[in-house]
Amino acid sequence: MNIHGKHWRTIWPVDGANSVGIIDQTRLPHAFETVRLTTLDEVAHAIRAMLVRGAPLIGATAAYGMAIAMGRDPSDGHLADAYDILYRTRPTAVNLRWALDDVRGRLRLLPPVEREAAAWRRAAEIADDDVETCRRIGEAGAGIIAQAHTKLGRRIDILTHCNAGWLATVDWGTALAPIYMAHDRGIPVHVWVDETRPRNQGASLTAYELGAHGVPHTVIADNTGGHLMQHGRVDLCIVGTDRTTARGDVCNKIGTYLKALAARANDVPFYVALPHSTIDWTIQDGVREIPIEERDPAELTHMTGRLPDGSIATVEIIAPGSPAANYAFDVTPAHLVTALITDRGLCEASAEGLQSLFPETRIEAARASD
Amino acid sequence: MNIHGKHWRTIWPVDGANSVGIIDQTRLPHAFETVRLTTLDEVAHAIRAMLVRGAPLIGATAAYGMAIAMGRDPSDGHLADAYDILYRTRPTAVNLRWALDDVRGRLRLLPPVEREAAAWRRAAEIADDDVETCRRIGEAGAGIIAQAHTKLGRRIDILTHCNAGWLATVDWGTALAPIYMAHDRGIPVHVWVDETRPRNQGASLTAYELGAHGVPHTVIADNTGGHLMQHGRVDLCIVGTDRTTARGDVCNKIGTYLKALAARANDVPFYVALPHSTIDWTIQDGVREIPIEERDPAELTHMTGRLPDGSIATVEIIAPGSPAANYAFDVTPAHLVTALITDRGLCEASAEGLQSLFPETRIEAARASD
Repeated sequence: MNIHGKHWRTIWPVDGANSVGIIDQTRLPHAFETVRLTTLDEVAHAIRAMLVRGAPLIGATAAYGMAIAMGRDPSDGHLADAYDILYRTRPTAVNLRWALDDVRGRLRLLPPVEREAAAWRRAAEIADDDVETCRRIGEAGAGIIAQAHTKLGRRIDILTHCNAGWLATVDWGTALAPIYMAHDRGIPVHVWVDETRPRNQGASLTAYELGAHGVPHTVIADNTGGHLMQHGRVDLCIVGTDRTTARGDVCNKIGTYLKALAARANDVPFYVALPHSTIDWTIQDGVREIPIEERDPAELTHMTGRLPDGSIATVEIIAPGSPAANYAFDVTPAHLVTALITDRGLCEASAEGLQSLFPETRIEAARASD
Repeated sequence: MNIHGKHWRTIWPVDGANSVGIIDQTRLPHAFETVRLTTLDEVAHAIRAMLVRGAPLIGATAAYGMAIAMGRDPSDGHLADAYDILYRTRPTAVNLRWALDDVRGRLRLLPPVEREAAAWRRAAEIADDDVETCRRIGEAGAGIIAQAHTKLGRRIDILTHCNAGWLATVDWGTALAPIYMAHDRGIPVHVWVDETRPRNQGASLTAYELGAHGVPHTVIADNTGGHLMQHGRVDLCIVGTDRTTARGDVCNKIGTYLKALAARANDVPFYVALPHSTIDWTIQDGVREIPIEERDPAELTHMTGRLPDGSIATVEIIAPGSPAANYAFDVTPAHLVTALITDRGLCEASAEGLQSLFPETRIEAARASD
């Protein structure tokens, strides 16, 4: 996508330098800064400290990390070490594991002298595949927005939660890909951006990237969506998912479930966009089977922003001594989801719907549900 | 209620000084500071700038403001001016208008020389009446908590939204009164405190007052309640209301509606506590008839807190240039409310329920619905 007219990806190889460039997302939205990662440790730090975040981007970054490691030392021992170091950065991230398994599996078959070049090629493929996956999600979802526009003949108001935009992927994003594509095609869209407490990924990242690309949007408190839906101010919702069960339950940033309930109560279509890599065919009931990560309460009790002089500061916002709890995700049951928007097109949020798009997984899903 | 063992009200007359003391709630939770209001302008500023907030406390403060004004100049002209100045501070606050009408109506009948003493007496009655009203709400609601404790035989987890505690009233609070009463009677309670964006009244005020009184509680992001209810971690919800329609719809801080939807979806009882003064017998359909105040987006885009050195600073937290919208309230339809907890006891959230408790209003309600 564009930042003030110039096209960017979130990660790019630096030619001949055994390194990659990234956007330091911890500095957004207050500053746009790029960082060059030249060592395995720098890559691991970038993932762990969330300079890069979002499942697809983490996967691509890990793949590039393996390439950087092979450029330093392509031995079997270093291959194993690099895998372990990168895997430990965010052990619950499904795409991280997938990308590391993929790259290690390919490199193991090669003599060490061939590993560096092969790793760079494969990392580039993983990045390109992610762009293509997101582009396809965008195509599938843009059709929904175009239909709504044809039907209503006016601007389409779309609510989203958290950041499932291009900053979370290599380009396009997942939930935001249909919005970018509709906008780029001249369909008038406006996005209600949930602030997304804690961590504020909506107010900081989603608002940043929509603004930089020129998409009209308004930031709202997470509390607001129900009121807007009651008053016909939301035409449809599109959110992402970190993990999708075989029957179509979606685990996404905490608060997604509340918006899905409000959408259902007010007859607003609620779509979930996802690359196939987020589908976990081994689980069915998301509420019962997905453990919800509890993160540092400081994400809730402290807030980082710009002081009037432009410098960045962190303030504590809670009553002194009051305990806080920070549940990171919740599960939206499939029955609240109007449809899933995948890189293979739309489907019902159900076992049948997912299997119709991914018939090759039918056996795997059946085995898991035994 | 108590602040670290000492009993306080939120407003108190200062004997012989034609002034009142208040807690400066804009300084909470970072500092506990009291302020003395000695002029009509100071009272008006305290209401407008939300040094005092919460419908019942605003009403009591306005009544004391009329007394302070009469101490300065008890003429007919100044009586009218004082009314206008105080009314303009928060024109949508029902209790403010009610208290001002009440005091002005009584004073008009008196010769100017008798107005100062009469105004102080009436303001004290209004404050005492509020304490008694809240105490009765507490009695009615504590029974619900006691029943839940008898049934479940363990700590009762209660979710609340915004601040409907004693800081919003003269003492006890509305939604929190049952919790304080149950706690003081030895029933084990724990409160999930919604942070309550924007303005953060939960994380700052509700957490502060529960902590100061010694009630166990945990602050959570507003996004969290649905997840907790899905997992059986909430036994009941109690919230306040700024305005209640004749058929039991409740208009409360934005986000209340989302919690009510989650409570219904997960079979969690959802109670709304209210003094009879919040009932607007002239309206029925809250979603259609209640205009929702849009407040300054700065409440969403900026956040005030403590820097590591203890000083207070305000940081901007949103992507630069992104617009924001700040809807202050939403309406929860009566059908999502398990029962109303009033100063006359419990009733169904319906026209029949309310009229059973307030039979004297039956004619008024019938007339309004024509």
